[in-house]
Amino acid sequence: MMKNKVVVLLSGGMDSVTVLYHSLKEYDVIGALSFNYGSKHAHQELEYAKYHCDKVGIKHTVIKLDFVQQLFKSSLLIDGGEIPEGHYAAENMKSTVVPFRNGIMLSIACGFAESQGANAVAIAAHSGDHAIYPDCRTNFMEAMRAAMQLGTYEKIDLLAPFVDIDKTEIVRIGAKLNVDYSQTWSCYKGLELHCGKCGTCVERKEAFELAGVPDPTKYQ
Amino acid sequence: MMKNKVVVLLSGGMDSVTVLYHSLKEYDVIGALSFNYGSKHAHQELEYAKYHCDKVGIKHTVIKLDFVQQLFKSSLLIDGGEIPEGHYAAENMKSTVVPFRNGIMLSIACGFAESQGANAVAIAAHSGDHAIYPDCRTNFMEAMRAAMQLGTYEKIDLLAPFVDIDKTEIVRIGAKLNVDYSQTWSCYKGLELHCGKCGTCVERKEAFELAGVPDPTKYQ
Repeated sequence: MMKNKVVVLLSGGMDSVTVLYHSLKEYDVIGALSFNYGSKHAHQELEYAKYHCDKVGIKHTVIKLDFVQQLFKSSLLIDGGEIPEGHYAAENMKSTVVPFRNGIMLSIACGFAESQGANAVAIAAHSGDHAIYPDCRTNFMEAMRAAMQLGTYEKIDLLAPFVDIDKTEIVRIGAKLNVDYSQTWSCYKGLELHCGKCGTCVERKEAFELAGVPDPTKYQ
Repeated sequence: MMKNKVVVLLSGGMDSVTVLYHSLKEYDVIGALSFNYGSKHAHQELEYAKYHCDKVGIKHTVIKLDFVQQLFKSSLLIDGGEIPEGHYAAENMKSTVVPFRNGIMLSIACGFAESQGANAVAIAAHSGDHAIYPDCRTNFMEAMRAAMQLGTYEKIDLLAPFVDIDKTEIVRIGAKLNVDYSQTWSCYKGLELHCGKCGTCVERKEAFELAGVPDPTKYQ
């Protein structure tokens, strides 16, 4: 059987970097796509995304989405207000939602994939995202997958291999794939080091702990 | 019943201008959204889009999508090659497809709508588009609608009031709404006047003729 020709959505976080290495093993990866939509932590994330693409020798494309920062509301964005602290799945993390971000990134990746001769897009959404982010849930991914397949000549597929597992399981998979998690970024605050207190830092720590994998991150 | 608060996707062509006037009658229109993705005819289209927004007094937002011209393949784009002549629904018009364009525009409009306090997005896709453009078809719209509703807190709706009628019917509806079609643009070539020969000009002429509505267009 022909392997899927895949474009990987790569933020530079733990999950998408793991999807990249998972995809390199399972599929024919034709490139990785990152977005800069003006989040506070974009500069660190994108540096790590590039690092892994260079390391494994695949093409890295960054698309700038200026309109998100100009027109959308989210505390994740520069000038979007304070990042809340606490647990990642808690109610107060809702302010970090960027409306329909995954829908937008998947749609652009879908058109990009068709233009570049790929037939699938891989995304790292996982079950830990489900509480707060509606566009990370399984039923959204299924509807989006149908839209992508119906809306393109190549019937571009959506691969979400981690959508029903959690971050702990992702770390276990990544550890087996020898993913260097010291070269990934999670913190929403975008300071020099991971803050250790915002939802995504708390989630990061917890995942390493529960997976029984040493956490290489330097927290503030 | 509360009226839908709607963002209208407005290209400045006949169909979307008709959707705008239709929406003004049916819904609470909170703004119109246009995209500049580097098509040859963007400058004319966007001028007409602005004209109608100014005329009816609604906010007009234009989002520039530079990445389409840089990374996507289509004869519709500047530097994308020759626009084919002939019938709009003919096989050779496939070169004008911009991969997943409607998926991308709807996704961005969906996030924009949620950020701006709207609860629906209206799009002018119609049955004449179905032959060549997979992301104009009814089944794509249904899947995309599900993705938008599942992927947002506000369950943003997708309204495609013309998806099962053709351009002739749209012209009839527009004529009843007193739409000034002299202030709309169709031609893919983007010259000073409508060329009268490309697929979308042929389709435009045909629609007026079949609808029995005088065609106000100056063709070359």
